[in-house]
Order: sequence, then C-alpha cells, then structure tokens
Amino acid sequence: MKKIINDPATVVVDALRGMALAHADLLDVQYDPAVVVRADAPVPRKVAIVSGGGSGHEPLHGGFVGRGMLDAACPGPVFTSPTPDQVASAVARTDGGGGALLIVKNYTGDVLNFETAAELVEGVDVRTVVIDDDVAVKDSLYTAGRRGVGGTVLLEKIVGAAAERGVDLDGCEALARRVVAGVRSMGLALTPCTVPHAGEPSFTLGDDEMELGIGIHGEPGRRRVPVGTAEEMVWALLDPVLEDLPFGEGDRVLLFTNSMGGTPLIELYVAHGIAERLLAERGVVVERRLVGPYITSLEMQGMSLTLLRLDDEMVELWDAPVHTPALRWGI
Amino acid sequence: MKKIINDPATVVVDALRGMALAHADLLDVQYDPAVVVRADAPVPRKVAIVSGGGSGHEPLHGGFVGRGMLDAACPGPVFTSPTPDQVASAVARTDGGGGALLIVKNYTGDVLNFETAAELVEGVDVRTVVIDDDVAVKDSLYTAGRRGVGGTVLLEKIVGAAAERGVDLDGCEALARRVVAGVRSMGLALTPCTVPHAGEPSFTLGDDEMELGIGIHGEPGRRRVPVGTAEEMVWALLDPVLEDLPFGEGDRVLLFTNSMGGTPLIELYVAHGIAERLLAERGVVVERRLVGPYITSLEMQGMSLTLLRLDDEMVELWDAPVHTPALRWGI
Repeated sequence: MKKIINDPATVVVDALRGMALAHADLLDVQYDPAVVVRADAPVPRKVAIVSGGGSGHEPLHGGFVGRGMLDAACPGPVFTSPTPDQVASAVARTDGGGGALLIVKNYTGDVLNFETAAELVEGVDVRTVVIDDDVAVKDSLYTAGRRGVGGTVLLEKIVGAAAERGVDLDGCEALARRVVAGVRSMGLALTPCTVPHAGEPSFTLGDDEMELGIGIHGEPGRRRVPVGTAEEMVWALLDPVLEDLPFGEGDRVLLFTNSMGGTPLIELYVAHGIAERLLAERGVVVERRLVGPYITSLEMQGMSLTLLRLDDEMVELWDAPVHTPALRWGI
Repeated sequence: MKKIINDPATVVVDALRGMALAHADLLDVQYDPAVVVRADAPVPRKVAIVSGGGSGHEPLHGGFVGRGMLDAACPGPVFTSPTPDQVASAVARTDGGGGALLIVKNYTGDVLNFETAAELVEGVDVRTVVIDDDVAVKDSLYTAGRRGVGGTVLLEKIVGAAAERGVDLDGCEALARRVVAGVRSMGLALTPCTVPHAGEPSFTLGDDEMELGIGIHGEPGRRRVPVGTAEEMVWALLDPVLEDLPFGEGDRVLLFTNSMGGTPLIELYVAHGIAERLLAERGVVVERRLVGPYITSLEMQGMSLTLLRLDDEMVELWDAPVHTPALRWGI
C-alpha cells in the first residue's frame, strides 16, 4: 500500500487538520467528536442542514460545508459510519432555532446512527431524509434497499440553497423528498481501492474487467464485464438510469458525471460528452451539468452518472450562490 | 490499459467535445486547429493571455480558460506539444488590440513551437514568458534547464487577473517575470501513468518505492527512495523548494498542494496540513493556499508542492474574481 499518510489510525484527523488550515475562512473543525462546522454557525432561524458518512469519499461531505450548502458534516473513519454523538454534536453546533434536516445516504450503519442521534437531541426539531439513488442493486453488502451515491451531492446543494434562503423545515424536508424521488445514479469501477487500515485492495479485477454497478465502498455491483469503449461504458450506466425513473423525451435534467477518484479528468470529459449526446438523441434536455470528482472512493478508477429531473425551483436553487471548499459559484 | 476512452487517436478531441458541452457558457471550442477559446473573446484592448501544452495534465490548461485567467489554451496530443498553427490561431482568435502574452512551460517542444508561432503571427505584439519552477533537476528528458510545473497555475491566475483589469502588455509581461522569479516546485510519484497511445505505463516503480522529483510526464526525478510517512514525503519536497529561492522567515507565500491526479483528496489534505505546519515552524507565512488536482499526469498517484513568494499586488490579483471550469470565485 502506497499512500500519503502518516498512520492509518490518524488519517481522518490528519486530513481534517489540513482542511482546517486550507479553509479557515469557511470551516470550524471540531475534533472531539469530529465535526466540520460552517464557520458562521449557528445561523439564526435557518434550518441546519447536516450530513456525514464514512471518510474516503472526499470532497463529500466536509468539502460541501459552507454558505448555501451544509451547516455541518460528520466524518466517520474511512468507509465507516460516524457515531451518533458526532451527529448530535453537529446538530447542537448548528441549530439556530429553525430545526435540523439530516441528509443520510442509505447504508445500514449510517441510517441507524443518524436516527439514534435524532433521538438523542433534545429541544430541536430534527428530520431525516434518506437518499437511495443507486439503481444498480436492490440490496447490497452494507445496505437494505438501494445505496445512496451521486444524488447526495445534488441533494445537498439544492436543499442547502433553500435553507440559505430561509425556507423552513417543512419546506426543506418536502424539497429533499422531491429531489430523492427524481434522482437516479449508477457507477462502474476499472480498478479497486485500498482502505488505509486494511492495507490491501478491497476487491480484485482482471486486467480487462470492470465492475458494473460498483458501490462507493467497492461493494459488488450487477456484474463483471470486459472493459469496452467509453461509448459502451456510458451507455451501460445511462440505460438503466433512464429506464428506472423513467426519464424520457422532454424531461429537463441535471447530468452529473462523477469520477470515482482516480480517473483522469480527460477521460471524464470524454464520458460526459458521450452522455450528453446520448441524452440529446433521446430527447432528454440537459439543462445543468456537473463534471468532476465529487463523491469518490479513494483512488478507485471509474465513474458514475447521475440524472436529476429538474423543475424551475430546483434550477433556481442549483444556480444559487454557494461557497464551500469543493463547490463555489456566485460568491 | 483500462481507460474511459473510445480510441487513443481521438481522446483529446473527444474530451474537448465533452468540455464544450459542459461549459458552453464559458468556452468556445475550436477543433481545427484545436484551441479552447474564451466565449467572449476577443475582449477589446485587453492583453490576450494564451497558454497550452500537451494534454493529460487537466484541468491545465483548458480548464483555466475564462474570465480573469486565460483567453485561450492550445491542447496538444497527450504529453506532446501543440503545433505552432494552434498557437497562432489562438492569438488570432483572442487578440483584441492589446497584444498577446504566451505562457509556456519550459519543455523543448513547447518552447520551440510557441516561439515559432510568435514569429508566424503578424500585426500583433506577442511576448513569451517561459516558466521553469521545478527545482528537482537541472536538465531533463524533454527539457534544457528546469521544467515548468505547478507554478504555471499560479502564474496563469495572477497574470490573467492583471490582464482582466486592463494592465497593458508591458505590465503583464513584467508581472509574469516577477511570478516566475518567485515560484518554486517539486513533486513525487507513488505510481506511474499510462499514455493512451502507448498502452503501457511510462515507467515502473517497486511496491515500496517512490520517485522523488518526478516530472509531469513521468520523467525521472532526483532519485528513487522507499515510500515513507506523509511527514517524510512532505519534507522531502519542501526542503529543496525552501532552499532553492530561498524562502525564509517572514516571507509571505502562497502554498499550492497539488495532486498528480490519482491521489485521493483525503491524502492531499494530510500533506497540506503537514506542509503548513512545517512552514509555520520556519516562520514562513502562508497567506493563500490552493489544494487539489490542478496540474496532473493522468492517473498518476503523487503530489507536488509549490511555493510562491507573495507581495501585496500578487495577493490582490490572486483574490480577484475568476470564472473558469476549474477555478472559480467571486463571480
């Protein structure tokens, strides 16, 4: 295992120290329990948007803390859920009297620990929205039901913008459920990744194989297939995504072409161009796009495609100013 | 070789198509010859800032085209210089009457082709600034003198901001030379990368080896050493960078912690935090920072550190609004 780390046991806290120094204007990093907090929290009367999950998916979630997105993020150990006391502390630090909305990716540990946290917190109206946008598999290694993947980034941006504008907790929760209902994703892996404390790749792939429907922790997907052309790879992801909702002619969408971490940007743009063309051929109207490594699996090479069905309100909230370490515009 | 491409022969143009679709509001992509042009070019009276080089280092350079940075970028084949006619076309497309400044990384092919282009262009005052910030080696596989690496990103931002404010060609050229004089970098690789048309890794490294002083095309550096801790890696890069200028107590700097492409962000933040601490211990004042994959070598795992000695003007220009695919703030 070759990694730029001092010790697998301290990699999360060491990375948090780097984030705190790099983004001191945006973030207030708390170490015990570990929570990345928006520097100006709590914002009076605003709904606090709180998320988190295992580390190793950076910039998700800590990189999305800031104005117009998350109020706090709870980083667990690599690929391991944060604890209830982290989440409870995040709510306590960010509650400005407007209540809190917890955004939880659908993994058994995360759902359990966020729900436990919601029960621990007293005197704050806490709601939970679970995101499960991965169409690849019904149940999975760490999941009952579908996994939460790329849709999480879009959900956090859109609901974060709503909360920033003063939308109340009922409104934020309803909006979040509308985003969850209209977003679908699927990913593939060309190479595995190595969790620092494991020291070995979490799975193996043959020299010409890829895993179609990969999970963000390297969980198995639908099947292993020979690596094809970019055209074949994009269609292998896009077709099940389109079929699932389904997305069809005339639908307005946001297309999110995401790198699993180790895939070069030049390849990601190749994939993005193909996806846009295939969607145009089917009459699906791409109105907004996001291209880059935003929800990753350490150094895994591969990609995921996410489609979100847009309405006017979502477009306006997507375009609203945001200032976080990883997403920034209009500010 | 596992890559998300259709054909090694078309990877650059296929990626350009994806960029054009993803960033239609910012970019006007020309395919023959290939030039990524700022959508609102030419800007009347503004100095045109033009750069380029081999592809495979994305987001450099095309991802830095836009308001407040580059007017045009010329993408060559992967790790291969663009041709003089690409550069000449870029100047012709972006000249608004204020002349053009070519920013060229110091590689033999780039220097030759940009200089040939400068001679081809008629009726435009064209100046060339060569950047050679890599302290690792004096001469290299593709270079007489030092290589141009991470400092290029900082140079393009700062001079781009000056040109946007209306600084004239003499002023932009003088500023660029001041940045080149005050910036130093060094990188390391943990893994190699594979150029698509080669199909094989460009070099090999043992399971516990790293290449110290790696070039952005995988050129050999100073030496191969056993992989150490992040602390040891950061110091192995920072010490020669500090010594070279030299940077010393009281110096105000921008610290740029760059991923070579395949290194996870969690590791990059570990390294950044260590670098900040080591600089603070030496009395070097980090006033600005940039952390992320901004000048890459395809899927290579590794990092580089760049230090730029700042003055008030550079800080102001660094902070100035920028809107490009890869760097954006204040707009």
